[in-house]
Amino acid sequence: MKQNHQTKASILVIGNEILSGRTKDKNIGYIAEKLTENGINLLEARIIADSKEEIKSNILELSSKYDYVFTSGGIGPTHDDITTESIAYAFNLELEMNKEALKRLENHYYGTDIKLNSARRKMAIIPKSATLIDNPVSAAPGFKINNVYVMAGIPRIMQSMLDNILSNLKKGPKNHSQTISCSLGEGNVAEGIKIIQNDNPNVDIGCYPYFKAGNFGVSIVIRSIKKAEIKNVLLDVKNLIIKLGGEPKIITN
Amino acid sequence: MKQNHQTKASILVIGNEILSGRTKDKNIGYIAEKLTENGINLLEARIIADSKEEIKSNILELSSKYDYVFTSGGIGPTHDDITTESIAYAFNLELEMNKEALKRLENHYYGTDIKLNSARRKMAIIPKSATLIDNPVSAAPGFKINNVYVMAGIPRIMQSMLDNILSNLKKGPKNHSQTISCSLGEGNVAEGIKIIQNDNPNVDIGCYPYFKAGNFGVSIVIRSIKKAEIKNVLLDVKNLIIKLGGEPKIITN
Repeated sequence: MKQNHQTKASILVIGNEILSGRTKDKNIGYIAEKLTENGINLLEARIIADSKEEIKSNILELSSKYDYVFTSGGIGPTHDDITTESIAYAFNLELEMNKEALKRLENHYYGTDIKLNSARRKMAIIPKSATLIDNPVSAAPGFKINNVYVMAGIPRIMQSMLDNILSNLKKGPKNHSQTISCSLGEGNVAEGIKIIQNDNPNVDIGCYPYFKAGNFGVSIVIRSIKKAEIKNVLLDVKNLIIKLGGEPKIITN
Repeated sequence: MKQNHQTKASILVIGNEILSGRTKDKNIGYIAEKLTENGINLLEARIIADSKEEIKSNILELSSKYDYVFTSGGIGPTHDDITTESIAYAFNLELEMNKEALKRLENHYYGTDIKLNSARRKMAIIPKSATLIDNPVSAAPGFKINNVYVMAGIPRIMQSMLDNILSNLKKGPKNHSQTISCSLGEGNVAEGIKIIQNDNPNVDIGCYPYFKAGNFGVSIVIRSIKKAEIKNVLLDVKNLIIKLGGEPKIITN
């Protein structure tokens, strides 16, 4: 499928705890769904360690390859939170105490017994020329620098940051999709689907086998930015399933 | 922490359905845990699209950078399953109908009403010189070529393949870990933990805030290949928490 006119995005998850298996990443799937809903094409996601050099090389590569990079993780107050300084290092930028970010932290902790100590103040140190990303959950902001959106790793904070970001992104034409399932084996439909795909280069057909509760079958997902093309292909797939002795079940996405 | 003597691994998940958000990846977290248990250090994971050129460039990069690459996804019977041919393309290898793989498929389908058609036979076409990875769930094998282990995307098939692989991998010294939690804020412990980390370069201390059921706090994870060092650092962290007015709770990993 031709998608060159679509906005291209990538995700960089930063954190040893994900690579050790201690914490299971929930951010990639969430960001992926939101980007798809907004017509932004996620083309790659990476998970890397809390390493200054790894962060640098990955940020430089992804930010030059894609329209947007979304990072999660490593912007908290502890010694292992090195994302901000590593991104400044990657882009050769100076860090500064951001007055607006500091004010937000001061307001957030005012009247509580939580002290705005130097570890917490570190969360307001941000590259010069970066713009802040609001954090309605715990105040400490994310930031945008060049085409990189730097967000927290904790899912509900990351989600609130992403909600704030989405309205400002350059959206592409939305990808529509339609799913049709049947209890035939993936291998039964494969040859017919291949022919339909070849005949319809402007749609993208994916086949995903499922096994659940003793049943198995295949879900066929038809994607395109043109709804009318999906409709035609859906009919072809439906007829193929019937021809093969299956019962097509159309699931609206 | 110095981990150069440890075996270094990477994961490459291949599949448009993960990048669209339709399917949530469960393989990275599972493989990560198993590798950690076996003293193998996962340093990077990537999710990429069903694209021949993307698969090629990522396989070549990861296989030269790490001791092992584990892939998941794209080895089924349908037109969008292009992992096998893309890996052959990456390493400039010929594909052939693997007799042993074909025999396994024939045995698997023998006596059923499932036909071993050309789409299913495609799953037995594997690069020359590859060794098979057993698939006790649905017969169609994965394969190993150079330092790359090519596995299915469906989690329970991938898991059964990984179980078969693990015993043959070069394991490093096992990383031990110990977690200690308290209901202090992450920002309260940050300064003290930083000092303990600096004093103990042979352990790796991670701080992970948690929010659950109205409670918040921080879990401090101490990792090392030397159990004795963990014990010493654990005592330091415990004393720090007490000094800060918290109640340390030691969780055995």
